[in-house]
Amino acid sequence: MKDPTIPTITAFKSSPDRGQGLARDMRVRWALEEVGQPYHVKLVTFEEMKQASYKALQPFGQIPAYTEGDLTLFESGAIILHLAEKNENILSREANARARAITWMFAALNTIEQPIVDREAFVILERDRPWFDERIAMLDQRVDKRLKDLSAKLGREEWLDGEFSAADILMVTVLRRIESSGLLEPYQNLRDYMARGEARPAYQRAFAAQLEVYRESLSK
Amino acid sequence: MKDPTIPTITAFKSSPDRGQGLARDMRVRWALEEVGQPYHVKLVTFEEMKQASYKALQPFGQIPAYTEGDLTLFESGAIILHLAEKNENILSREANARARAITWMFAALNTIEQPIVDREAFVILERDRPWFDERIAMLDQRVDKRLKDLSAKLGREEWLDGEFSAADILMVTVLRRIESSGLLEPYQNLRDYMARGEARPAYQRAFAAQLEVYRESLSK
Repeated sequence: MKDPTIPTITAFKSSPDRGQGLARDMRVRWALEEVGQPYHVKLVTFEEMKQASYKALQPFGQIPAYTEGDLTLFESGAIILHLAEKNENILSREANARARAITWMFAALNTIEQPIVDREAFVILERDRPWFDERIAMLDQRVDKRLKDLSAKLGREEWLDGEFSAADILMVTVLRRIESSGLLEPYQNLRDYMARGEARPAYQRAFAAQLEVYRESLSK
Repeated sequence: MKDPTIPTITAFKSSPDRGQGLARDMRVRWALEEVGQPYHVKLVTFEEMKQASYKALQPFGQIPAYTEGDLTLFESGAIILHLAEKNENILSREANARARAITWMFAALNTIEQPIVDREAFVILERDRPWFDERIAMLDQRVDKRLKDLSAKLGREEWLDGEFSAADILMVTVLRRIESSGLLEPYQNLRDYMARGEARPAYQRAFAAQLEVYRESLSK
């Protein structure tokens, strides 16, 4: 019997990133580890995510969905904010610091991840199209414009706004999506920032947990 | 002398949408009107938005930025959540209803607006490229996939989750961005939903205020 007070998240049964931890369950796992909240994971196949029963949890057929008693949430940003509000480890109780951290949560998802997702979908789906070379240069420029501003804002600070927060969980995991692209090369401070995030014990536990799922999927 | 307790938002001095209210100040104006919060507007040119002095307010050189005393916020989602937390008109005080509304705020921005912004940038910047026709069909399909799920989830409900909330302000303003595309044609319930939002007195006041800025920019 599962303990109903322990939340459950959904994650890919077989992650297309081959255990790199780039899917959006990783950021939620990391937040859960930072706040010390045990959790269950329900693995779902791409086929199952299209079913009406799954869409009742997550209307767009994506991962992660989050259930806690009779509450169901989705959107990694919303789930992490929900966890953060219960634990000042990742969200300040001081009103202005809290509001600024939430600003950076939205910025990670809407200003930085937006052009990164756009570029990522293009690389996956249009690599063989005749327009690939010309367009990838444009998309790289759009991502670089945002990275440049982000790097300038971060400067020599350790985290986005004062203490480590939920915003850093989102920003580090968003930046990891372009780790293999070379686009982070010019921005040493952003790479150091990511390394600081990845060095946190909570990150390490979350990463190991998602990697274990991938390894198990191989052995079946 | 400005009253320092009244917040100030930034908006385009000369909006590229010619008064249609599609820029992101519109959603913040709407939320301010819903909660009955008077506000000042500081108009900025595209040139001013690139300056270091503006980037100190908004690191990515975008509108709107929001200042309230010594607090500076950006990201329309974060600003609206900040306003909503002070006023139950647009965010329930009941914990689960509140968490669900915040889920829909993130969904509006990350799941629905994401492919809409991608499509919009493509239409503006690549209309004359040889690949336009082939790609626009793909991008339309991606937006349609999301609209289909959203329409199915909304069903015959009046708002996204129970009472009108900050999530509806975001979703209606996000959907307005594709109003002229024809993509909403198949979804009568989404068009009715938008019409309900646009009929609200607070929406009307916000729309009139931004239109006035556009009209004044013409007369100079």
